[in-house]
Order: sequence, then structure tokens, then C-alpha cells
Amino acid sequence: MKQVLPEPMRVAFAEAEAAALRGEVPVGAVITNAAGTMLTKAGNRTLEEQDPTAHAEMIVIRQAAKILGSERLVDCNLYVTLEPCAMCAAAISFARIERVYFAAADEKMGAIENGPRFFNQPTCHHRPEVYGGIGEAKGQELMRNFFKNKR
Amino acid sequence: MKQVLPEPMRVAFAEAEAAALRGEVPVGAVITNAAGTMLTKAGNRTLEEQDPTAHAEMIVIRQAAKILGSERLVDCNLYVTLEPCAMCAAAISFARIERVYFAAADEKMGAIENGPRFFNQPTCHHRPEVYGGIGEAKGQELMRNFFKNKR
Repeated sequence: MKQVLPEPMRVAFAEAEAAALRGEVPVGAVITNAAGTMLTKAGNRTLEEQDPTAHAEMIVIRQAAKILGSERLVDCNLYVTLEPCAMCAAAISFARIERVYFAAADEKMGAIENGPRFFNQPTCHHRPEVYGGIGEAKGQELMRNFFKNKR
Repeated sequence: MKQVLPEPMRVAFAEAEAAALRGEVPVGAVITNAAGTMLTKAGNRTLEEQDPTAHAEMIVIRQAAKILGSERLVDCNLYVTLEPCAMCAAAISFARIERVYFAAADEKMGAIENGPRFFNQPTCHHRPEVYGGIGEAKGQELMRNFFKNKR
């Protein structure tokens, strides 16, 4: 049975695919507001911007904060095609994101279900609701194809 | 006996004090290259820039990457007045920073000696050398004064 993806996750996947075409690790992210309206979308741009912090999640968090005029994205939701790393998980917490939806887990760099499990740390002071596996097979396939082509 | 601070840490403290005057959490950071030349300095700007990711460490990492034209800051050292959080610790790792010198530990948000101890995680793939307590008393005092004035 094919899983029907929420529209923001579909857009996040399109951003991930566009990132792959630029030679970036194929991760895409979207932020929606409380009404479900899409505020911003981005793919990884670490190589293009020569910026090690330019993960898709960081870019959409920074853009959404600019749009809302606040460093706190209260009631906003984040959709991302890969489990966030420790940098992005902490930024998600600081931004007070309400819910995180991600596609594929990331055993190598993930920080929600893997590694530091940041939202379960006593030093994490805002924990979003987290829904993993939303488009998991597609998320895994994107990463697998990317690294296969790199070898 | 008064500890003699390395020059980059002195500059980081000046950045932290300037941040406090702007109403920001008083943290300052400096990046030097292999020759010990200061590449960039910054204080926290999360409120001013309405950007939850604008910690001092993140700003200097992004600036240094722009200056060096690479997302990898090989052979560079980071000086910061407070133990980095999980976001900054992961960014330090991604940027391949060689050495991290920090002043005060941060039990509430720190991610090197506290919380996730990110550099000890199996999902951390580059571990800098870390030197804590470089100007510890001054770092603690800055934070204490800041939060006392907030109450």
C-alpha cells in the first residue's frame, strides 16, 4: 500500500531532489504555520554557500524567523526528509517548533532516535512532538541513490 | 594567582560583554587560523537578528567559512566564553575545527561536558581537541551577572 504523503513532505522531497542535482546531500525541509500554510522551504546548501551550518532545517528555521519577525516559531511545524542531526535538533528546540515530521531515520548522523537523542536530554528545554517514518522508503531511497552515485 | 588569558579569549570576552549591552546572552567567540591569526569574532545576536541559530559560535563559523572559501575550517581553533550547546558543538564538528577553548562550563545547555557530550557520541565523526576552563571564573561571572540583572 502506497503511503499518501502530506503536501509539505511532498514539497520537502522536491527540495531534496533539487539539492541532489546541485551535488548536495539530498535533504529538504519545509516549515508550516499553525494553519498549515507553508512559510518556507529549502534544500541543503552547505557546498553552494560554503557554510557547514547550511542544512535544510537550519535554512528554513532562519527564513521562517525572518518572516515571522521572531526567533521563536511558536505553533510552527517542520517537515524534513531525513532525521535531523544534533545541530538541527537543538535549533528546532531553540525555535520552539511544535511538531517535527521526518521521513528516513539517520543512523550515521541523526540525533532524535539515534546518537544523542537530543530531545530526551536534560539539557533540552523544549521538546517538539516527533513523527518519524513519514515517507520513510522514499527518504531512504534518496539517500541510498545519492551515496551510490558518489562511489 | 590570576590566570593570563590567551589574546583570542580576551577578544571573545569583549564580544560577550558587548552582547550583554545589546541585551543578548553574553557569549562571545573567536576563530583563529593555524598561524594563530584571528579570522573572525562575534557575540550572540539571536534577538537582534531574530534568528534562533545566531549563537556566537555559529556566526564565527559561518564568517570564517566565507573568508576561507570552504565549509571546512581545517587547522582552525575556536575560542568561546561558554561551553557550546548541541547546535554549536555539531557545527564545530562539521566545520572540522581543530581545537576548542572554552571558559565556563554550562550545566543548563552545554553539550561537551554536559548533556549529550556530543563529541563522545558515535554519531560525531570529527572530534576537536577540547580545553575547558580557560578564563572560567570570568566566564561564570558574566553569566551570573547577566541572569541576576534579568530577574
